[in-house]
Amino acid sequence: MKALGVGILGLGNVGAGTVRLLAEHRARIEARLGVPLTIRRVLVRDRARERAVDVAPELLTTDIEDVLGDPNIAIVVELMGGVEPARSYILAALRAGKHVVTANKAVLAERGAEIFAEAARVGRAVVFEGSVAGGIPLLRSLREGLASDRITGLCGIVNGTSNYILDAMTRTGAGFADALAGAQAAGYAEADPTLDVGGGDAAHKLALLALVAFGVQVDPATIPTEGISHITAFDIRAAAELGFIIKSLAIGERDEHGVGLRVHPTLVPRGHVLAGVQGAFNAVLVQSDALGPSLYYGRGAGMMPTAVAVVSDILEVARDLLAGLYSRPGPTGQVPSAIPAPIALRPLADVVCAHYLRFRAPHVPGVLGRVAACLGRHGVSIRRMSQETPSDDGSAAMVMLTEPVADGPLAAALVEAALPVTRLRLLAD
Amino acid sequence: MKALGVGILGLGNVGAGTVRLLAEHRARIEARLGVPLTIRRVLVRDRARERAVDVAPELLTTDIEDVLGDPNIAIVVELMGGVEPARSYILAALRAGKHVVTANKAVLAERGAEIFAEAARVGRAVVFEGSVAGGIPLLRSLREGLASDRITGLCGIVNGTSNYILDAMTRTGAGFADALAGAQAAGYAEADPTLDVGGGDAAHKLALLALVAFGVQVDPATIPTEGISHITAFDIRAAAELGFIIKSLAIGERDEHGVGLRVHPTLVPRGHVLAGVQGAFNAVLVQSDALGPSLYYGRGAGMMPTAVAVVSDILEVARDLLAGLYSRPGPTGQVPSAIPAPIALRPLADVVCAHYLRFRAPHVPGVLGRVAACLGRHGVSIRRMSQETPSDDGSAAMVMLTEPVADGPLAAALVEAALPVTRLRLLAD
Repeated sequence: MKALGVGILGLGNVGAGTVRLLAEHRARIEARLGVPLTIRRVLVRDRARERAVDVAPELLTTDIEDVLGDPNIAIVVELMGGVEPARSYILAALRAGKHVVTANKAVLAERGAEIFAEAARVGRAVVFEGSVAGGIPLLRSLREGLASDRITGLCGIVNGTSNYILDAMTRTGAGFADALAGAQAAGYAEADPTLDVGGGDAAHKLALLALVAFGVQVDPATIPTEGISHITAFDIRAAAELGFIIKSLAIGERDEHGVGLRVHPTLVPRGHVLAGVQGAFNAVLVQSDALGPSLYYGRGAGMMPTAVAVVSDILEVARDLLAGLYSRPGPTGQVPSAIPAPIALRPLADVVCAHYLRFRAPHVPGVLGRVAACLGRHGVSIRRMSQETPSDDGSAAMVMLTEPVADGPLAAALVEAALPVTRLRLLAD
Repeated sequence: MKALGVGILGLGNVGAGTVRLLAEHRARIEARLGVPLTIRRVLVRDRARERAVDVAPELLTTDIEDVLGDPNIAIVVELMGGVEPARSYILAALRAGKHVVTANKAVLAERGAEIFAEAARVGRAVVFEGSVAGGIPLLRSLREGLASDRITGLCGIVNGTSNYILDAMTRTGAGFADALAGAQAAGYAEADPTLDVGGGDAAHKLALLALVAFGVQVDPATIPTEGISHITAFDIRAAAELGFIIKSLAIGERDEHGVGLRVHPTLVPRGHVLAGVQGAFNAVLVQSDALGPSLYYGRGAGMMPTAVAVVSDILEVARDLLAGLYSRPGPTGQVPSAIPAPIALRPLADVVCAHYLRFRAPHVPGVLGRVAACLGRHGVSIRRMSQETPSDDGSAAMVMLTEPVADGPLAAALVEAALPVTRLRLLAD
């Protein structure tokens, strides 16, 4: 009986979890595949560093050629993160005839076109369940489970750090800075949290979701992306009084006019299924023609949850490999793997939805009337409005909830009102 | 280019939905498979009957041999429901070298051992995503997405009819009979609702979930199963006052001592993710070692949702077939497909959980004390207790919530109390 060899690139959190799962389930994996699965090489930066998992020292290497040159390694598992050298190593692995499993959303969102094209050219697989929503079998569900359906929309919490922070703000009344510090102390946010709280991580994931769900290729830099650092304790409270919870959502929609993608904090009605997603959990609500709504929920990050996705991907590739099936469909499910040309997204200005507006104005007669008149002149109707008790400086915070409106008229009205306004979108019904 | 032929057995609701999806997505399916997928025969009982979908008359047949004998049919799709003749036709199709897709939980739960053994013997696939939770890609997620993890528990709403009725009772205050009549009028319950409201349908699905999630074979007749017809408007109200929603749950647990399965109405805390599942929706919460909790939610029945699962299964089998992979792993994911021997379930008496007790007693001094004393003598602690205003006949309804307790002591205490008591289990924390 021949063993199937695996090479792992990177032995951080997810790498260690992957090594641990492969060891723990050795017997079950062999029962599933019919042959043992063995780790033949682990690429690390520093062989001497302490690890969260036991790896035989002779497996560790700092030279990528030890992985690429081993003819017994059939599957390369890239868990280094970031664009380079991950991109170069993935391309080199494909050219060396290896199949690739990765959990690296950055490299696929930024350089996916090149990577998938190379995979198609050499007839090797690139699978990436772990790159979006951690261990939740979300991409697999979109690609296989809904293969027979047409997905028209998806909407979800795909960045656990942002959700953890907003959830803490909602539960404790803390401001953004305090909640971020708490998340950092609890290990849910990085020292530099920019990619998470700025929405960039969610935009990477949304680009991959759009690839699998809609079959389109999108430059993540073109996705309208808004972070959560401007959300205040006042916003959380005001939204709650209006019956909403603020969540950072990645939203994708497609219709006959094209595909729209966006990442932004969103007012979600309290009873909505996404409103109840707490802490660092992820959840994605998918809308498709025949099935209607379906939801996938679980831990979207972390050592063991992401390792579940990685090892399940390894098993999928291994099973096909052992069955003599050397080529898998590409990310959009088509054979031969078709890499779509990049598309331009529908502009955010096309999105019609209700808005939450918060501004601070001098507490003098006529201010509210002036703002309301500006909105009215541009056809923006106000659904609800509330005003705080004026503070000592004589100004008062005001909140308005508009009826659904397109971006253009609203923006024009706000320019005319000449007040700094914080705008948040409401989840469309 | 050669077409791949499909034969469909049964043209009811799900059969019509399947035909419709295959037609609607013809181009996408061909792009996915590389060849067209064509329906070559549809077995019906009556060729003259009106159908919910257009099928060329020459495809309809009342003779199973027209399907079995067509060498161009590679995949037989069984959508007749019930045990016979579905079982005979599935076995005959396998012996004729066909792969089988089915959405029939009854035949697999009752005769799965025989069917999977035959499939393994002849090296053909039997896939059945549509048999549990309709279009939600649940079995696929358990089998593939969590292939690398160890599933320890699952708990879910898998019968839409029961959930629709309990949800209506919760929202409107109606009694069981009225809510059932409403569900029947709305098309969510059959004229004979026994299999749904009695829990038998959920037990069938739970047996299949246990096969895929735990790799065990269970006779569904041995699953402790309790329906919902004894739940009263009073129970719904009393549970709500205590902070619970009553849901009919299918529950599976496994640990080192074995596997326990049960179907019964359950008091679920109001904030729990399953408490919010409304109408005829399904949702299954899965617990696994590395991933932790994950949830799968969507429409669990109906023409198009179930057709999504059926057509996705057809595509999966077709893709493997076209790639020259003629044998798939069996329901437990092992190759060669291993059909486990039937196991005995852990007795329900082993389940330790809190209970809701409702009884009616004469409103005379000492009754409550007597019941409480009986419970106390058997070590059953009472967490909360409430009593209705006595009715005209001088009796009063009482509700008790116990601390977690095993079945044996509780049953003994209730025998000693010598009062007819309605018992409902609480969801364990």
